[in-house]
Amino acid sequence: MNQYLDFAIDLAERVQGQTGTNPSVGAVIVKDHKIIGFGAHLKKGEAHAEIQALKMAGEEAQGATIYVSLEPCSHYGLTPPCAKAIIDNGIQSVVYAVKDGSLKNSGHEMLYEAGIDVKHEPSKRAEDLYEAFFQQQQTKLPFITLKISTSLDGKVATDYKESKWITSKEVKQDVLKLRSQHDAIITGGMTVREDNPLLTSRNPELSNPTRIVLTEQSSFEGDYEIFKDEDNPVVVVTSSESFHTYENQHIKVKNSDLSNLKTIMKDLYEEGYAQVMVEAGPKLVSQFIEQDLVDQLIIYQAPKMIGGQGKYQYYQTQDVVPLSNSKLFQIISTEIIGGDLKITLRKK
Amino acid sequence: MNQYLDFAIDLAERVQGQTGTNPSVGAVIVKDHKIIGFGAHLKKGEAHAEIQALKMAGEEAQGATIYVSLEPCSHYGLTPPCAKAIIDNGIQSVVYAVKDGSLKNSGHEMLYEAGIDVKHEPSKRAEDLYEAFFQQQQTKLPFITLKISTSLDGKVATDYKESKWITSKEVKQDVLKLRSQHDAIITGGMTVREDNPLLTSRNPELSNPTRIVLTEQSSFEGDYEIFKDEDNPVVVVTSSESFHTYENQHIKVKNSDLSNLKTIMKDLYEEGYAQVMVEAGPKLVSQFIEQDLVDQLIIYQAPKMIGGQGKYQYYQTQDVVPLSNSKLFQIISTEIIGGDLKITLRKK
Repeated sequence: MNQYLDFAIDLAERVQGQTGTNPSVGAVIVKDHKIIGFGAHLKKGEAHAEIQALKMAGEEAQGATIYVSLEPCSHYGLTPPCAKAIIDNGIQSVVYAVKDGSLKNSGHEMLYEAGIDVKHEPSKRAEDLYEAFFQQQQTKLPFITLKISTSLDGKVATDYKESKWITSKEVKQDVLKLRSQHDAIITGGMTVREDNPLLTSRNPELSNPTRIVLTEQSSFEGDYEIFKDEDNPVVVVTSSESFHTYENQHIKVKNSDLSNLKTIMKDLYEEGYAQVMVEAGPKLVSQFIEQDLVDQLIIYQAPKMIGGQGKYQYYQTQDVVPLSNSKLFQIISTEIIGGDLKITLRKK
Repeated sequence: MNQYLDFAIDLAERVQGQTGTNPSVGAVIVKDHKIIGFGAHLKKGEAHAEIQALKMAGEEAQGATIYVSLEPCSHYGLTPPCAKAIIDNGIQSVVYAVKDGSLKNSGHEMLYEAGIDVKHEPSKRAEDLYEAFFQQQQTKLPFITLKISTSLDGKVATDYKESKWITSKEVKQDVLKLRSQHDAIITGGMTVREDNPLLTSRNPELSNPTRIVLTEQSSFEGDYEIFKDEDNPVVVVTSSESFHTYENQHIKVKNSDLSNLKTIMKDLYEEGYAQVMVEAGPKLVSQFIEQDLVDQLIIYQAPKMIGGQGKYQYYQTQDVVPLSNSKLFQIISTEIIGGDLKITLRKK
């Protein structure tokens, strides 16, 4: 792997999770074996990585090589096409790691036709970085992670609903970090009412997600943490036409049919939520699984057995489906955290 | 680690699982930097490792050093004490890896008092080898492994009882090998009637366990694999006073109260079953867990979700216990086999 392209991918990884539905991209400009500019796309609507790097390089860009983690764009979106800026600034060669199949017109072609030496140098690391982005381009849905903390025997609480704490403190820390890597956390009204979670990263050094609460009720009686924390937005999605909201609050209320999670997810994607994580009770968790909406599953299993009748098994459905139609995942990795097992899986 | 002691532990590992309730032991005799004898305890009631090695060394043993994986025994059991044979054969030094706390009189002391140079050289590998043996010395119970093949959400079948196949072919191979490492496989009458398993290792190169069937019924109607296979013994443990056995069969029938699994296990240990594995349906599996009889848990999790109401969750109990009393295990290792996750746990 070329060291400059490697650096560009590093930059892209550093800003991953802060660009919303845009891909995170890094760019490095090199001339006479020296780095003369670099940049990354920091936020949707702001300058792309190539533009940041060109700005740093200034007139030096003339005759230089630019290394980019993703094929430069060729379209007018919220910003003008990067391929045009590369051409206009007199760049001589372009090396990029991943082809952008979502472009209507190839940036590669546009650069090549302008007489620039263009090279696609594939990288597995960069491909992994854009997997979710390309999927979103097709589905127009956020990349949905479902997080579950469970006993070994698949229960999230005893039959008497005791659930604090099944997994370890170390798992809790891991979950706080996971939250900061998502644009939004989705939960159910029942979880808010019964567990009263804050659903932030609880760490001033980490960013916080928007909290999205799905509820069929028309109000929240009581003083919940999630609503008290005014620093971070809350969106209540409710099927109730007469939802009674708090006054002077940072809370947005939306009406939607809660039985169709896919439509709610599509709306979230359109509003710029690209990476969302579901942390909820068995009812909502089961709906996400049953409606095939889980892209990634992160399951923390405590090595303990709860037993009972399994009233709070995390996956319960009305329908009994044949084994051949059970929901399939693929194990990506396993890790032991504070004595518990963390299993990361992807939809198969 | 001394190379000869290492060899002695290797020998002990090679014969692990074939010595019943006796520990597997290896011994190596060395004189003038050359190996002049070695042996292992092959079968309960037959010569111990030290005796085998002394026999191979013959008169050369005079003035030699013997390396043994476990402290030589000092008591008359089924065979005379090894410490006495070591003394009688003129051995000059003894090096052993693990102290045998189950001995009434220390073999170390007996050798030392006879003027032999005795050294205890601890080894983690050898300690692991004897963990189950020492536990059995105290509990007088077999070391009980519970094997479960389950979906990610803790079910061993759909609500309509479809269970073939939840886990992969590769897992099946792994289970066949596991069977050969146990003296007996314990199952329930219902599993025999409904799944009709053979419960052997299905490999002429591997040894086969005794099949032990626990049943409340008074007979088995039909032609079950487990009874047809006359090469390997079957023990039926039944609470029915009038169990009707097959004629001309290799089947032993025992009467016992099935609600007290611990007594049944104690009886098995007395009959020489040191390592047993439970492969059964949710009812028997749940009883073993609830009665705290599981020393080791080997759980194969297919990365799929079955859902439904969880009629066949593998762990179900009548009682609801507080979380603080849930059954605790400790994760020893994880491995991916044919796309499924194998988790090995020990009782905590």
